[in-house]
Amino acid sequence: MTTTETIESRRSVKHFDPEHVMPEADLAELIRLTKLAPSSFNMQNYRLVVIRDKARQREIRAAAWDQAHVEEASVLFIMCADLTAHMADPALYWGHAPQAVQDILGPMVKPFYEGKDQLIRDEGIRSSALAGMTLMLAARGMGYDSCPMIGFDAGAVAKIINLPSDHVLSFMIPVGKEAKPAWDRGPRLADEKVVIHEQFPGA
Amino acid sequence: MTTTETIESRRSVKHFDPEHVMPEADLAELIRLTKLAPSSFNMQNYRLVVIRDKARQREIRAAAWDQAHVEEASVLFIMCADLTAHMADPALYWGHAPQAVQDILGPMVKPFYEGKDQLIRDEGIRSSALAGMTLMLAARGMGYDSCPMIGFDAGAVAKIINLPSDHVLSFMIPVGKEAKPAWDRGPRLADEKVVIHEQFPGA
Repeated sequence: MTTTETIESRRSVKHFDPEHVMPEADLAELIRLTKLAPSSFNMQNYRLVVIRDKARQREIRAAAWDQAHVEEASVLFIMCADLTAHMADPALYWGHAPQAVQDILGPMVKPFYEGKDQLIRDEGIRSSALAGMTLMLAARGMGYDSCPMIGFDAGAVAKIINLPSDHVLSFMIPVGKEAKPAWDRGPRLADEKVVIHEQFPGA
Repeated sequence: MTTTETIESRRSVKHFDPEHVMPEADLAELIRLTKLAPSSFNMQNYRLVVIRDKARQREIRAAAWDQAHVEEASVLFIMCADLTAHMADPALYWGHAPQAVQDILGPMVKPFYEGKDQLIRDEGIRSSALAGMTLMLAARGMGYDSCPMIGFDAGAVAKIINLPSDHVLSFMIPVGKEAKPAWDRGPRLADEKVVIHEQFPGA
């Protein structure tokens, strides 16, 4: 499937085959591709919580307005982020680079974020979304469907997955085999509404 | 190019051919594909500022640690979001759906967000990142390269593009024709670090 076909055919599917079990090799490939998503300073601050225990999926479904795809999904991904990623030894992220690059970039990471709580949170949300979009398109390319979700009680789900207090929960992505096609695709806003050329009109 | 090849070959390219002009048809196709990204309640709250004026690109480059690709890019996208999207008439987003679905979902949008400033901002950052990742992969599939960037003075860039006070600036994506290959891909953290099975270990 070409990238264009993948983007066009990715839809938010709300009914999955509840009997389908994702082969381990497919899960590993999906994770490998997701990890190729870019992240700020290569911090890879996103965290993927992989849920396949049906009892836990049922528990999360109950915290998500009883939406069936949470339980029916072959794999439920909870997209999170580690808000302390910028504090780690930068060699973890930049150890591969030439020494000159390491010397410039390594010491930049921590001061770029330290003490800037909103920026740190933004980076967690952004990074998990870049990874999550990569995951959804990778899944589509592999013959799976998905559905990004924010309609759930984030506090309740955080409790179920033991989310550490220095992590943020961004959104969920059930992935599975489509049992019922998605609704018709929602209309797209006109380019005039979402595309701004050069600058926003002045006040 | 398959989706897997596109994900594998997308790299953060930092040097573009400064003479390259993106054909209008390519820009239109890139925008069309980007707009297929999912968004919460189909609000399409992301906004794409499309910059091709080299003088403006130079100005933004100066506000971005003098990084050359900001100016060399055929098109510089500034990924923003409208923080008031949930206040609009839901028929704009759901007018296509069966009346029964509209009756349930339409009235949910505004109360889901209203008064929740952090959630509104998160949604802007998340939505612009889902759109931006789609844009980067679509560009790669079309033979272009890109580089997501957060290393710039956001206040200065907001001023240059006249960003309204009820919008948020998320990140920038220069897109163009590669002039120099990207650095070697940064090492990926082990699955043990970024993938959590079922739940985080208890305290």
